[in-house]
Amino acid sequence: MINTPYLLFLGDAPDALAAKVAQGVKDWRPELCVGQLRLPGCRADMGLDDLTVEEAVERGARTVVIGVANRGGVISKAWKVSLTEALKVGLDLASGLHNLLRDEEDLVAIAAQNHRALHDVRVPSVDYPIANGVRRSGKRLLAVGTDCSVGKMYTGLCLEKEMRARGMDADFRSTGQTGILITGNGIPLDAVVADFMAGAVEWLTPDADPDHWDIIEGQGSLFHASFSGVTLALIHGGQPDALILSHEPTRTHMRGLPDYALPSLERLRDTALPLAHVVSPDAVVTGISINTAALGEDEAQRLCEDVEKRMGLPTVDPFRHGAGRLVDPLA
Amino acid sequence: MINTPYLLFLGDAPDALAAKVAQGVKDWRPELCVGQLRLPGCRADMGLDDLTVEEAVERGARTVVIGVANRGGVISKAWKVSLTEALKVGLDLASGLHNLLRDEEDLVAIAAQNHRALHDVRVPSVDYPIANGVRRSGKRLLAVGTDCSVGKMYTGLCLEKEMRARGMDADFRSTGQTGILITGNGIPLDAVVADFMAGAVEWLTPDADPDHWDIIEGQGSLFHASFSGVTLALIHGGQPDALILSHEPTRTHMRGLPDYALPSLERLRDTALPLAHVVSPDAVVTGISINTAALGEDEAQRLCEDVEKRMGLPTVDPFRHGAGRLVDPLA
Repeated sequence: MINTPYLLFLGDAPDALAAKVAQGVKDWRPELCVGQLRLPGCRADMGLDDLTVEEAVERGARTVVIGVANRGGVISKAWKVSLTEALKVGLDLASGLHNLLRDEEDLVAIAAQNHRALHDVRVPSVDYPIANGVRRSGKRLLAVGTDCSVGKMYTGLCLEKEMRARGMDADFRSTGQTGILITGNGIPLDAVVADFMAGAVEWLTPDADPDHWDIIEGQGSLFHASFSGVTLALIHGGQPDALILSHEPTRTHMRGLPDYALPSLERLRDTALPLAHVVSPDAVVTGISINTAALGEDEAQRLCEDVEKRMGLPTVDPFRHGAGRLVDPLA
Repeated sequence: MINTPYLLFLGDAPDALAAKVAQGVKDWRPELCVGQLRLPGCRADMGLDDLTVEEAVERGARTVVIGVANRGGVISKAWKVSLTEALKVGLDLASGLHNLLRDEEDLVAIAAQNHRALHDVRVPSVDYPIANGVRRSGKRLLAVGTDCSVGKMYTGLCLEKEMRARGMDADFRSTGQTGILITGNGIPLDAVVADFMAGAVEWLTPDADPDHWDIIEGQGSLFHASFSGVTLALIHGGQPDALILSHEPTRTHMRGLPDYALPSLERLRDTALPLAHVVSPDAVVTGISINTAALGEDEAQRLCEDVEKRMGLPTVDPFRHGAGRLVDPLA
């Protein structure tokens, strides 16, 4: 577990996209964010107070979350100055970067001197079991996408928020770096060794009360040649009772794979559902989540209506329109 | 690459099954096996000459292959005596055990003193790329199973043997420990980190001559809750032109999953082929391989005929009857 609240480190982010981890934490756990720390040249802004590490400590911060991608695969000297100061004033560090904090000798030494923790959420910290496929109590939902990065995490977080607002017992279960930094725990599934992927998902979503919902963060896509195996491990480890189909309508090809077209929502449904039935014979698709961030209001509304009519399932952009109609069939 | 030829170490194997790695090497690369080394109490026998490590060296051996599973998760003192002697007389060691040779300090020290190599084939030795899905030249075949351990590796090795006997250009591509010890190279796919599984398979089966066949060793099953993600990564990384369906007809439930029935061959076909089409639009199922080891001759023959009639595809036990009829559609 990562200590909260957070100071969000935006570094010298060249644009808003580079700080999407910070954006995720800010969007979903604003109550945990005491402020932001920006270096000269930073072009991202979470709309939080700009704080020094000392000011952040005064406001109760416990951990600096590195909310920005680094350039060139190195943790720069400019970053090191800030991160070192943070450790010295009593803050832990948490990072989802490929470069691990634990591999930076200077940070390790200063953290040890100051009794601070370095959290590398990209690296599994648990020896996960091999999946046993035994049916578990409680209910589980998983979003599966036509592609990677189409809004599965935001869909899950919207569902958790709406369910909790209705008094339902629901937990978002993080399976990626950003999700883990948002919720403070989870599994970095794409860094788990192949044999243990499904077992890690079983471990993440254990037996629960009959009315409890685990909202499992989706990863990859069954149609993405690079990462489909991760997606199938999520389906078979997750034993979903409900599937949500997720789609981004302006994508012209699969992310990172220019030769690959996106599948239709029908093809996604007809592929994912029989695979879910292997572990969860009564699984059903209960709704469709469209990421309309790139569309205007009217266009977004019309698209959702068209898809709903075509597919016969509640269809919304849950971040834009609320997740209510996706939760209705689950209540 | 592991130096050949081999001395097969059977240790104190309690039965033949415990020495199945040695059996695989003996069955498929008998010309690489100069003899076997057995300790008191060994109940496995490859039918090779029993040799001391010195005698093995005289016959040209370069590597001791640990062809037996160890008990209790430790490398015993009795084993250590033999393995130490082997290093001292100039032999390398190769192992697919979960316990790594490199974690045994005494073996590491003696290997270093004698300039010998310790090969732990369970551990990836390459930083595999993320799959890019780009269509590659050459042809690829993959066996997909109704379950794990139904004979996919033997099917692939039978196909390679038959293709080579016909003068076809074919290579068996190992994706598991036993396969790697048989062929001397490959990828330990179940030990690869999730994000890189499909990329490892692409790396293993690169661009090749138009008439070249890579026979990719299958792993797991799309219907096995523990390992299905590995299987889908094989399909999407492997870009198969041809799929062979593999089945073991006496299995009463999925291996290690007592609550799970095996899928029918029809269901396997209808699940695997559309997933293969994502990366390989012209992929076809070209035959069926039945592991009839547990059946009598007449029963085996009758079953293959029945399945062939039902499925409309060449159906044989390639280890028992030869792989000719599976190769015919590929020639």
